[in-house]
Amino acid sequence: MASTAGKVIKCKAAVAWEAGKPLVMEEVDVAPPQKDEVRVKIKFTALCHTDVFFWEAKGQTPVFPRIFGHEAGGIVESVGEGVTDVVPGDHVLPVFTGECKECRHCKSEESNMCDLLRINTDRGVMLADGKSRFSIKGKPIYHFVGTSTFSEYTIVHVGCLAKINPEAPLDKVCILSCGISTGFGATVNVAKPTKGSSVAVFGLGAVGLSACEGARVSGAARIIGIDINPDRFEEARKFGCTDFVNPKEHTKPVQEVIAEMTDGGVDRCLECTGNINAMISAFECVHDGWGVAVLVGVPQKDAVFKTHPLQFLSEKTLKGTFYGNYKPRTDIPRVVDLYMNKGLELEKFITHEVAFADINKAFDLMLSGQGIRCIIRMDD
Amino acid sequence: MASTAGKVIKCKAAVAWEAGKPLVMEEVDVAPPQKDEVRVKIKFTALCHTDVFFWEAKGQTPVFPRIFGHEAGGIVESVGEGVTDVVPGDHVLPVFTGECKECRHCKSEESNMCDLLRINTDRGVMLADGKSRFSIKGKPIYHFVGTSTFSEYTIVHVGCLAKINPEAPLDKVCILSCGISTGFGATVNVAKPTKGSSVAVFGLGAVGLSACEGARVSGAARIIGIDINPDRFEEARKFGCTDFVNPKEHTKPVQEVIAEMTDGGVDRCLECTGNINAMISAFECVHDGWGVAVLVGVPQKDAVFKTHPLQFLSEKTLKGTFYGNYKPRTDIPRVVDLYMNKGLELEKFITHEVAFADINKAFDLMLSGQGIRCIIRMDD
Repeated sequence: MASTAGKVIKCKAAVAWEAGKPLVMEEVDVAPPQKDEVRVKIKFTALCHTDVFFWEAKGQTPVFPRIFGHEAGGIVESVGEGVTDVVPGDHVLPVFTGECKECRHCKSEESNMCDLLRINTDRGVMLADGKSRFSIKGKPIYHFVGTSTFSEYTIVHVGCLAKINPEAPLDKVCILSCGISTGFGATVNVAKPTKGSSVAVFGLGAVGLSACEGARVSGAARIIGIDINPDRFEEARKFGCTDFVNPKEHTKPVQEVIAEMTDGGVDRCLECTGNINAMISAFECVHDGWGVAVLVGVPQKDAVFKTHPLQFLSEKTLKGTFYGNYKPRTDIPRVVDLYMNKGLELEKFITHEVAFADINKAFDLMLSGQGIRCIIRMDD
Repeated sequence: MASTAGKVIKCKAAVAWEAGKPLVMEEVDVAPPQKDEVRVKIKFTALCHTDVFFWEAKGQTPVFPRIFGHEAGGIVESVGEGVTDVVPGDHVLPVFTGECKECRHCKSEESNMCDLLRINTDRGVMLADGKSRFSIKGKPIYHFVGTSTFSEYTIVHVGCLAKINPEAPLDKVCILSCGISTGFGATVNVAKPTKGSSVAVFGLGAVGLSACEGARVSGAARIIGIDINPDRFEEARKFGCTDFVNPKEHTKPVQEVIAEMTDGGVDRCLECTGNINAMISAFECVHDGWGVAVLVGVPQKDAVFKTHPLQFLSEKTLKGTFYGNYKPRTDIPRVVDLYMNKGLELEKFITHEVAFADINKAFDLMLSGQGIRCIIRMDD
C-alpha cells in the first residue's frame, strides 16, 4: 500500500449538519497533519453524553457542520512537523484535553488543566492556523474538542494523544479516552478512599459507575449508589455498589438519609450528575472531621452552589476534578496498563456495539437511557 | 506549704455577672477535681475574641454568672480519679476543645473533632456530673468552654490539657492555647503552602497573623494580607506579609484584584475573618488547577456560602479547619517545642500586658482594636 503521508485522505465520516438531526455518512477530505499534529486512523470510537450535549446544542453557540466523537482508539497514520513523540503505527487514544508539557499546569504535579490544550468546546478549528482539516468539496467541516473521532481518519494535536501499549485491545481501551477515566480518576486520584472506607456516588451513568469501580479497586467496604432511576441499581452491583438510595423514595433530604445509614456521613463522596442539588447533597453527606466530596458532573451555567459555611468549618473538604485529574500523555498509558494487569475492568461498561454505518443507533440508545457504552466499529 | 489536694480552694476570679458588663474580681470556691479532671493554677492568661463574643452574648442563650478565659498556661495543682497523664507540678496549657483518645475522631489521623470533648460554648458545667466546680457562697458560677482561665485556679478535663516542656516560658506559650495555633495550624497542617508559593490571608488579626507566620515559616515567597483596616499592614510585615490589599480601595471584587496581582490566583488562601463575603472571595481568588482555600473564621449563624460550581470543577479545593487541625494533647506539646527551637516566633504577637486586677483593660484594648494579644499576669 502506497503511503498516504503528506496527501489528502478521502474517507467516511459521520457529519452533523445541524443541531439534533441524525448524522449523515459523507465522504470527507482530511488534510495532512500540520506542525505538532498527527493524523490518526480511528479503529473504534464510542459515544459519550458530551457528544450528545453539543450535538443537541441547546443554549449554545452552534458550530455546524461538525464531526463529533471524542472517545476512541486508533493508529497513527502520519505525523506533522515537529512531532517526535509518536510515529506511524503507534496505537493512540485521542483525548479531548491536552498536555503541552510546557505550561505551569503541565509542570504542576497537581493540575492537568493545560493552558494551551485545555478543552475548548466552542472551537471548531485546529490551533496551528485556526482552520479545519476536514472539508467536503472545499467547504470546511468543523472539529469537536480537537478529536472528531466519528471519522475514519482524524487530525489531533500531539499533546492530545496518549500513546498506549500496542497489545491493548482498542475496542476496549477506547473508552478510557473520556468518561471512564473521568470517574475512575476522580475516585483514585482525588477522593482517594482508603481500604475499608465508605463511599457514596451520586449518579450511576458511565462516569458514576467508573467512580464506583475506582472505589471497588480501592477496597472501599461500602459503596452507596444514589440515582433517581432504580433500573440502574442491578447493573451497579457489578461495579461494587453495596447499597442504593433513590432520593425519590424519601421525604427527608438524601444527605440525611445517607448520614443515618453511615453513622454521621460517608468518608468520601463523588457527584457525577452535574445537578446542583445533588452537588450540595454530595458535599453535605460526608462525615465531619475527614469527609471529602469531589464534584465531577458539569453544572448548568447559571447554577449556584449554596451551603452553610459551618459545613466547611467542621473539617469537610470539597474539591472538583477535571478528567479525573489525569494528564493525557503522562497518565493515560498507565491506566491502559492497569487494565491490562486486571487492576480495572472495562468489559462491563460495554453494553452495545454497532457498525459505523449505524452510528445513529448509538445516539438512540443513549437518548433512551439504554446501556452504558456503545462501541462503534469503524472497519465494518 | 500544706497540700491543697482534695480540698476546696478559695481564690480570686474575674466573674462576668452579666452580658457585656465589666468583670468583677471575686473570691470564689474551686472544688477539687473529680474523675478525669485536673485542678490547674493559672500563671498567665490572654484575652481572645471568642471570650469577648460570648461575654457580649449577642443573639445567644446567655450563661451567667460565668468565668471566661481560654488562652492560658498553668501548673497542675492536683488531679482527680483516673488521671495518669499529668501529675502535680506539670506545666500545662488548657485548651477549649479536647482529645479523649478513644473516639473515631481521635483515632482518625485527619480529625481533631473529638466526640466527647469537642468545644461546647453553651455548656457551663463539667461533664462528669453536669455541675460547676466554681461557687460563691454556695451559688454556682458557670464554666466557659471547659477552661475558665480568668481564675487563679480552674478545673479542666484531662483531655483538654496539653502537657508541655516545663522549660517553656508560660507567659509566651500561653497564647498557643487558641488563636495562634488556630491560624498557624491552618496554614502548616491544612493549606500546606510549598516553598516559593503565594499565599493570601484574609483578616490580619491574631489568627490571620498566625496564618501569615505559618506561611512565612513554610517559605512562601509572597504573602498577601487583606484587611479593611490599613493600620494592620505595618505590623503584618513582621509576620512575613509582602503585599497588602485593602478591599475598600478597589472597585472590582478583591478576588479579581488578587488574580491580577498573581497571574491567575494564589496557590493557597486562608480566610480568618468569618465574614461570608470574604469567605467567597477567599475561595474564588485561588488559582485553578491547584489552588486550596482554607476557611478558619467562624461565620454568622445564618450565613450562606454561594459560588458558581464551575469554580470547583477547575480543580480548586475548599476546606475548613478547626483549631488548626491540632489535637490538643498529641500536637500542642510539639508546637511548644517548635517555638523553643525557634521554628515559630511568639513574642511579636504579645503587644500588651496587664495585672490580673486590671483584666478589664484587656477587654478595652480588644474592643478598641488595639494590639494583638494582651497577657494577663495572675501572680501580681
